[in-house]
Amino acid sequence: MADRLNVLMDELQKRTENFEAALITSEVNRLYFTSFKSSAGLVLATRDEAYFIVDFRYYGAAAKQVKNMNVVLAADFKSELLKIIKKHRVKKVLLENAEITLAEVLRLEAWAKDAGAYFIKTSALDDAINSLRSIKTEEEIRNIKTAQEIAEKAFEKFLPTIKAGMTEREAAFDLEFLMRKEGAQASAFEIIVASGKNGAVPHAQPSKKTFATGDFITIDMGAVYNGYHSDMTRTVALGEASERQREVYNLVLKAQSRAIEQIRPGALCTDIDAVARDFIYKNGYEGCFEHALGHGVGLGIHEKPSLSARSKDVLKPRMVVTVEPGIYLKNEFGVRIEDMLVVTADGALNLTSASKELLIL
Amino acid sequence: MADRLNVLMDELQKRTENFEAALITSEVNRLYFTSFKSSAGLVLATRDEAYFIVDFRYYGAAAKQVKNMNVVLAADFKSELLKIIKKHRVKKVLLENAEITLAEVLRLEAWAKDAGAYFIKTSALDDAINSLRSIKTEEEIRNIKTAQEIAEKAFEKFLPTIKAGMTEREAAFDLEFLMRKEGAQASAFEIIVASGKNGAVPHAQPSKKTFATGDFITIDMGAVYNGYHSDMTRTVALGEASERQREVYNLVLKAQSRAIEQIRPGALCTDIDAVARDFIYKNGYEGCFEHALGHGVGLGIHEKPSLSARSKDVLKPRMVVTVEPGIYLKNEFGVRIEDMLVVTADGALNLTSASKELLIL
Repeated sequence: MADRLNVLMDELQKRTENFEAALITSEVNRLYFTSFKSSAGLVLATRDEAYFIVDFRYYGAAAKQVKNMNVVLAADFKSELLKIIKKHRVKKVLLENAEITLAEVLRLEAWAKDAGAYFIKTSALDDAINSLRSIKTEEEIRNIKTAQEIAEKAFEKFLPTIKAGMTEREAAFDLEFLMRKEGAQASAFEIIVASGKNGAVPHAQPSKKTFATGDFITIDMGAVYNGYHSDMTRTVALGEASERQREVYNLVLKAQSRAIEQIRPGALCTDIDAVARDFIYKNGYEGCFEHALGHGVGLGIHEKPSLSARSKDVLKPRMVVTVEPGIYLKNEFGVRIEDMLVVTADGALNLTSASKELLIL
Repeated sequence: MADRLNVLMDELQKRTENFEAALITSEVNRLYFTSFKSSAGLVLATRDEAYFIVDFRYYGAAAKQVKNMNVVLAADFKSELLKIIKKHRVKKVLLENAEITLAEVLRLEAWAKDAGAYFIKTSALDDAINSLRSIKTEEEIRNIKTAQEIAEKAFEKFLPTIKAGMTEREAAFDLEFLMRKEGAQASAFEIIVASGKNGAVPHAQPSKKTFATGDFITIDMGAVYNGYHSDMTRTVALGEASERQREVYNLVLKAQSRAIEQIRPGALCTDIDAVARDFIYKNGYEGCFEHALGHGVGLGIHEKPSLSARSKDVLKPRMVVTVEPGIYLKNEFGVRIEDMLVVTADGALNLTSASKELLIL
């Protein structure tokens, strides 16, 4: 048993005495700890040894590739799990809670009963894993960077095709198609294309509304590469931009720059959020920026840390975070500009290279 | 409170005495009971009244569209839920278990404590809903039919583009985008394109393998329309087909026809499964068809009933089911042919119209 799982067990022991083993059930965390993609399986880590239990579909490949734990072939998961629980005389097993369903918990509980074991249902395991996942390895950063490069290539090819009369849905569809052609495994989330008044809704779904001259168009997009996500938002203008639109755009851009300048190890996430928020509020747009400033990105599209007013997170080297302030003017328009950055030893490196000059298409 | 939710409450009371209200938390079942698409929200049904609790994003539209229950605007879900629980003096609340996560259950339990209520964690609610959902309305059948038509249009456009050298992944990618262009909201599942030896794996993921002359290519695909899914599989040959390939293809086709002939109200799903399975096994392919014969389709891609050897389900009018026998010859090739049918008053109507003659491309 090595590396990430060792770190996890150490971290868990700092947080709680109340466990003898940890059971990892979610697909994303199985991938994180085994570096092996599987649609079903269990990782059980006792304080001495760790096991990756998989079915016949994955056993051959997993046995070859997964070196940091014992790979076990399960004819049925129940009996393999019980064997290990009994062998290590484990009684108290920490359970993940963010993705496991109640039906799965009930099934596991019925199984564990037979071995005299039971599950600890707290957020301790999720908290420890999320904390670990928030700090990326070089390889993880490379994957995120590649995902971002894919998204930007697609964005560049997409921009010249924007024209009046195109619907938001068509645009989102074309963008997704371009990302996939560039090598994205998937879109990182449902692409947001919000034009004109729709741009005033931060999480608008692409509608049948057509682009019109004078619209601001907000595009929030990301790609998945090797399981890792990217996230970027740009707001562009179609044909022309009014003075008011330009003013708002520049304010958002300045708010973002000021926040980015503050990103360094040791910075409090609430402080970064406050820099952008206060700037927007003090310049006449109080109440027009209600969502969080940013979030971590990795195997999930929303991870730790949270850059928000209520966050307790502190920035550390090799965290990857978004900085995405916006101003949303109901029934008028909206602007959001989002970059993704990696925290370095003494500041931050911007992983986003798409221009932020106001583009009038 | 009307229609589906009334039927559900009646059904629940037949199944268990042990509840005073039912809490519906999953997106798909919220959609089923409200006919309103929402990414967050709760449906709480007491024996007297039902409530649809939504946030500000959905309240306006929901209040207009949802007529069969009280639509409640929640500033926070907790306080609205507690208000209703207290008003109706509800103590025992049935919970769904197939989709709700442990984290959500723990949060709900912490809330309910404040109202002296608790949750019944059994499969009773899921069982009753699944039973209800298995019988489709005319409108649901129309949606499934439209999804199938979309998939078939895409399939027709795709067929002439198949050629040696194309990878399975490229094929799956093209098919997905053709479906989306035809109006699919999404692909109903990750499209299977399995050629040559890969066809011997029933749930193969599209790989980088290229199509070669003499390959059988199995394509399993479906579209989503208005939330409803379709499901179809065809196996085609590239360039030529050997005698053995033709023999196996014809056996699978005959097995499917025999099973389809047995579909009518009152038929046991195990019997339908056995008709196809026995036919394949008796004709020299015992052990070469290991998965279930079929499944229900609707808002989910796999629903009740199950057409399998261990099913306890009985066919009823307006169930929509797949019939998808296959023969899988390890290291050689595979054949699967799948249609989707609706059970009628005295038989079945095939919703799939794509040809099943062996196509040599």
